[in-house]
Amino acid sequence: MNAKELFEKIKEKRSFLCVGLDSEFSKIPECLKREQHPVFEFNKRIIDATAPYATAYKPNLAFYEAFGVAGWVNLRLTVDYVREHYPDVFLIADAKRGDIGNTSRLYAKAFFETVGFDAVTVAPYMGEDSVKPFTGYSGKWAVILALTSNRGASNFQYTEDKYGGLMLFEKVIAQSKHWGTTDSIMYVVGATQTDMMTAVRKLAPDHFLLVPGIGAQGGNLAEIARLGMNDQCGLLVNASRSIIFADTSENFAEIASRKAMEIQQEMACLMTEKGLIR
Amino acid sequence: MNAKELFEKIKEKRSFLCVGLDSEFSKIPECLKREQHPVFEFNKRIIDATAPYATAYKPNLAFYEAFGVAGWVNLRLTVDYVREHYPDVFLIADAKRGDIGNTSRLYAKAFFETVGFDAVTVAPYMGEDSVKPFTGYSGKWAVILALTSNRGASNFQYTEDKYGGLMLFEKVIAQSKHWGTTDSIMYVVGATQTDMMTAVRKLAPDHFLLVPGIGAQGGNLAEIARLGMNDQCGLLVNASRSIIFADTSENFAEIASRKAMEIQQEMACLMTEKGLIR
Repeated sequence: MNAKELFEKIKEKRSFLCVGLDSEFSKIPECLKREQHPVFEFNKRIIDATAPYATAYKPNLAFYEAFGVAGWVNLRLTVDYVREHYPDVFLIADAKRGDIGNTSRLYAKAFFETVGFDAVTVAPYMGEDSVKPFTGYSGKWAVILALTSNRGASNFQYTEDKYGGLMLFEKVIAQSKHWGTTDSIMYVVGATQTDMMTAVRKLAPDHFLLVPGIGAQGGNLAEIARLGMNDQCGLLVNASRSIIFADTSENFAEIASRKAMEIQQEMACLMTEKGLIR
Repeated sequence: MNAKELFEKIKEKRSFLCVGLDSEFSKIPECLKREQHPVFEFNKRIIDATAPYATAYKPNLAFYEAFGVAGWVNLRLTVDYVREHYPDVFLIADAKRGDIGNTSRLYAKAFFETVGFDAVTVAPYMGEDSVKPFTGYSGKWAVILALTSNRGASNFQYTEDKYGGLMLFEKVIAQSKHWGTTDSIMYVVGATQTDMMTAVRKLAPDHFLLVPGIGAQGGNLAEIARLGMNDQCGLLVNASRSIIFADTSENFAEIASRKAMEIQQEMACLMTEKGLIR
C-alpha cells in the first residue's frame, strides 16, 4: 500500500485511527484465558469490534515474544485473521528493530515476507544500512523512531548537534528521509511531544507520521491534528490500552468498539475541518 | 552470572570468545537442510565443536525471526541444548530491543524468563525507561549499543553534543552507566571502531564490552585487547561468520572448531601478556 492508497483508506473509513494490539496476557479478560490461543481470541474480538473505526492495527511484538513460540503463534494467527477478514487494513509490526545491514535484511524478510505486515517500526541508532533493508520493498514501510512518547525520549533524542544545530530527532529525519521515499518511510512522533510537531513537519512536510501516546499516555488528538495533519492527512494516530483494556468484563469488545468509535468521530470532525472529507 | 563469575569462566576457558550464531538458513550445509529443525541441528554441531574454546554464544534473533514460529522453535531448542549440555556458557540474545518502559519489561521477560538468556543487546535511542527493565534482574545483563561495527554507525553515533561536548555514543555510556551496575550493564563497541576504544574506556573503565566485528567484518583482536582489556579482562569478543560459515561442506563443524581454537589461542596469549592467566 503506498501513501496515496493509505490516504484513500483513511478517507473511506473517515478515520486515521491505529489500534495498538498491546495484548498483554495478564490483562485480558478471565473468560478468554482458558482458550487454546487466548491472545489471538482476544485480538480477534477486539478487531471485529473496532474494524469499522480503525484504518490500521499495530501489535507490539514484546507482548507476543514474552511467551516465546506460543506468542509467535498468537501473532501469526492474528495477522492471518486480519488478512482474511479485513484485507484493506494497514498492519504495523511495532518491533523497533534495527541491526547491521545483512541482519536487518532478515528482519525485513521476517515481517514483510514471513508474516506479511505492511510496515515495521525501526530504531535509527545504527544508521543507514540498518534502515534501508526495510525501505526496499514496494508497498511496504519503515516507520522510523524520531521522537518517542516515553519519558526516556529526553535522554538522547533532544541532543543538539554542535555542527548544524539540529537536535538528534531532527537529524534522524533530515538524513533518513533520503533512505527511501514518502511511500516507504513514516516517522514515529509521540503524541506527548506536540511542542515539537512543527519542527518535525518542517523537515518532513509530506511524510506520514505514526503518533502513539493518546489515551493512556495522555496525548491530545485535536492538538496533534492542528500541528501535524497535512493535505494527505499524513497521520496515523495510535491508541492501545485506552481501547483494548477499557473494560475487562465479558463486555470488553463492546466497550472497545465504543471507545474506538468516539475517537473515529473526533477524527472525522478534524478531517472535515481540514477539508479532507465532507 | 555476575562480572566476577564471568571473569572466572574466561580464565578457566582461557578465552573471551563469543561465537555468534547468525545461523542463516540459506548458508547452512546442504546435508542439514532436510533435518526437521535444520538451524538447531547446525547450531548443535557448531556448539559441540566450539564449546572448548568459547565462553559465550550469541544468537542474533533476526536469523530466527525470519522464519517466524519455526525460527523461534529452533532458537528455543538451541538455548535448551546449551543449558542442558553446557550450563556454564554465557548466552546473549542479540536482539537490539528497546521500547517504552512497560513494553521493555515484557521483552526482558521474554529473553530472561521465557527463554533463559543471560544477556540481551539493547538499543539506547528511547532512553532510561527503555533500558532499565533489563538491568533489574539479578545475574542478568543489558548489553547496550554504544558504538556499532557497521558503516551506518557514523550517521548518528558520532553526533557531538553542543552542550558538554560528548559524542552521542559517549553520552549514551555516560548516562546509561547509572541505570545499572558493572554486574548488569555491558556495552557494544564494534571491533572496527578501535580508534574510539580509549574514549569508551575513559567513561567505562570497569564495564565488560561486547566487541563484534572481528573476522568477516575485519576487526583486529590484538588491537582490541591492547586498548580495551582491563584487569578483569572486561571483553567478550564475538566472531560469527568467520567461524560458523568457514566451511560449508560436511566438515563444517571440524573447520569451525579449528577457527575457534585459533582465536582462543591468540586470546590466551593476550591474557597471559596482560597477566590475567599464566
